[in-house]
Amino acid sequence: MQFFKVKTVEETFALIAEQVPAIKQTETRALDKALHYILAEPVIAEENVPGFDRSTVDGYAVRAKDTYGSSESMPGFLALAGEVHMGEVPTMTVSSGTAVYVPTGGMLPAGSDAVIMIEHCEDVEDLLNTYKQVAPGENVIRKGEDIREGEILLAAGTKLRPQELGALASLGITHVTVFRKITAGYLSSGDEIVPYQTETLQVGQIRDINYLTIAGLASDWNVEVVYGGIVKDDFAEFQQKAFELYQQCDCLILSGGSSVGAKDYTTDVIQSLGDPGVFVHGISIKPGKPTILAVADGKPVIGLPGHPASAMIIFKLFGERILRTLTGEVLGRKPERIFAKITKNIPSSPGRSDYIRVRLFEQDGDWWAEPIIGKSGLITTLVKSDGIVEISSEKEGVSQGEYVPVIPSR
Amino acid sequence: MQFFKVKTVEETFALIAEQVPAIKQTETRALDKALHYILAEPVIAEENVPGFDRSTVDGYAVRAKDTYGSSESMPGFLALAGEVHMGEVPTMTVSSGTAVYVPTGGMLPAGSDAVIMIEHCEDVEDLLNTYKQVAPGENVIRKGEDIREGEILLAAGTKLRPQELGALASLGITHVTVFRKITAGYLSSGDEIVPYQTETLQVGQIRDINYLTIAGLASDWNVEVVYGGIVKDDFAEFQQKAFELYQQCDCLILSGGSSVGAKDYTTDVIQSLGDPGVFVHGISIKPGKPTILAVADGKPVIGLPGHPASAMIIFKLFGERILRTLTGEVLGRKPERIFAKITKNIPSSPGRSDYIRVRLFEQDGDWWAEPIIGKSGLITTLVKSDGIVEISSEKEGVSQGEYVPVIPSR
Repeated sequence: MQFFKVKTVEETFALIAEQVPAIKQTETRALDKALHYILAEPVIAEENVPGFDRSTVDGYAVRAKDTYGSSESMPGFLALAGEVHMGEVPTMTVSSGTAVYVPTGGMLPAGSDAVIMIEHCEDVEDLLNTYKQVAPGENVIRKGEDIREGEILLAAGTKLRPQELGALASLGITHVTVFRKITAGYLSSGDEIVPYQTETLQVGQIRDINYLTIAGLASDWNVEVVYGGIVKDDFAEFQQKAFELYQQCDCLILSGGSSVGAKDYTTDVIQSLGDPGVFVHGISIKPGKPTILAVADGKPVIGLPGHPASAMIIFKLFGERILRTLTGEVLGRKPERIFAKITKNIPSSPGRSDYIRVRLFEQDGDWWAEPIIGKSGLITTLVKSDGIVEISSEKEGVSQGEYVPVIPSR
Repeated sequence: MQFFKVKTVEETFALIAEQVPAIKQTETRALDKALHYILAEPVIAEENVPGFDRSTVDGYAVRAKDTYGSSESMPGFLALAGEVHMGEVPTMTVSSGTAVYVPTGGMLPAGSDAVIMIEHCEDVEDLLNTYKQVAPGENVIRKGEDIREGEILLAAGTKLRPQELGALASLGITHVTVFRKITAGYLSSGDEIVPYQTETLQVGQIRDINYLTIAGLASDWNVEVVYGGIVKDDFAEFQQKAFELYQQCDCLILSGGSSVGAKDYTTDVIQSLGDPGVFVHGISIKPGKPTILAVADGKPVIGLPGHPASAMIIFKLFGERILRTLTGEVLGRKPERIFAKITKNIPSSPGRSDYIRVRLFEQDGDWWAEPIIGKSGLITTLVKSDGIVEISSEKEGVSQGEYVPVIPSR
């Protein structure tokens, strides 16, 4: 077996950015089926939003300068010259000394440049008393103020959140070109691993719970996980099952077998899938050291440690970056870490990144992170946790009260 | 129309907690179809996890006291007495002065109480040199250490994240009793509102983009939104459509028509649906003041402001609490707000809560929140934003550099 030097977390992040490609295939999707998909092309606005000057309040369209000097004690007076209805193009004009009623969202009549709120006026037999002055543009959204015709509204690689869908819809866009949904094949290995549905365990058997945690996390990143079953510790069978699944999917996830044990075929299986092959074999991290990352003929391969809790943390840390990059998303804008104060000193070896499960609580306007006691292999420590504190490799630990980065678990 | 006093945000939160019920109906779901569902019953562990003492490393099962005093310079010596294979119940016993190889996850043989890592030993012709001492329990997960038979693993009202699914699976649980998925009917009103798919707008028309933003947000809370179409400003039609949709769904969302305009039938329509009716009519908040919240015969009704950006913020703030409560989730554990330093002074009126769209960026180990310029009606301000800063009603604004709570938008 080829010899690999253990990488730091930071080196691993850099290698992922360098090695993992984005999927190339795109598809057209209707907006109401495009949530969480990634734009494959920039979207350029082909019209102004709004398409006309609109009132943002219920009030009266006026010439702003007609209201200058109006106050509670010295009201101004304007002649009422009609009413704009919603969804109607007003035919009247606001001339000097007149006002026209406009509802919220209504179109401003020609001649007006501001709206005075209904609360700041009084209609006394078609003479409008104005108790406040308004500036030009006040309570108005100008044509094109939200989106201007010709501007790049959204860049390629943008993840479509609800607000992006809303902005696209406001332009009359009904379909978008997005990267197609990716699939990740999941394969477990190990003589002791049995399907999680197994009712009664033989002594020595372990249920394959990683499938549920991995598929659950992946679905949050809009990735579908294809279950490939469990292979025994047999190189030929492992290699064949891995190859079949790898061919069906855009990414391969291998669970178990990444410890330096006698039956560790994982590296050889991964190396057999394609070039350039393994780029990370072992990460200086706790928990999760025996992690393998590879790219084989353009498809990422993730070899997870077998411990359920370690596997989940590794998959959240590195799998998320790998899969989101593969979906075509341009990463970086969304905050993935928040800051909280740590409740106690935690020592850490320099050169190694530590990930500590914590409970979060709010006190005096600050978030506090309280480490959860329990060995790293315990899945219940993740159940009890609200997030994971990151102690990066250059630190020798953290001190009580220090701000530390936390990756929240939703 | 009944007269309602505007509520503060804090009063509104309290009223939601008091008024909104949880859905009663439950269903049984397989674990791999239960992600993001809410447990309807507590789960009690019926077995120990792990079911046997397991090694957490590749190494040798020993009696810890046999290693006491071992060091690099003064190694101890143990006789090798066999090897445990994964998935096998060991038949040998570790007696004083002996050691047995155990792989990661393997079962400890009787007599042993610790595992010494393979890296800290050397096998010299069946005589094991030990270069480090181990304490009892070291590198071992005890039977029941993760989950103990009889303990309450998860409480009713828990949202099933990937780690909860993993913990359930590790117990051999394959199905769970959860609250059924809820549906929310969405109905738009307004003469000027046209379907968002409308290609060319008549002047004065506005595309119904709220459906996309609202349905998108709701899907993140595992709520399905049923599109009820658009009704004109006609009381009878509005009432009938609202009633039909209300009967089909577990919750009703009304978009538009909640401004104090001449055509505001929303309150009357809501009041006609059932008792106790409206409990919030107007919130002291910017943006989104004209918000209506009600419960009619056990079903929540949400009257959103028509402005797309306001509607989204209101729905995120109040709709999320209402819908998640309705799904049966016990709220409170997940951090919904993070803290960031604000980049500039922002004034605010005491008695009113302000919600400011911000871009988040990291600098010197802190998150900073930079307000986005733009009127509150602009959907693009939400597209540009990474979150919303909350200035609560008792504050008169925030000062540059002050920590402020931020609701991140994923």
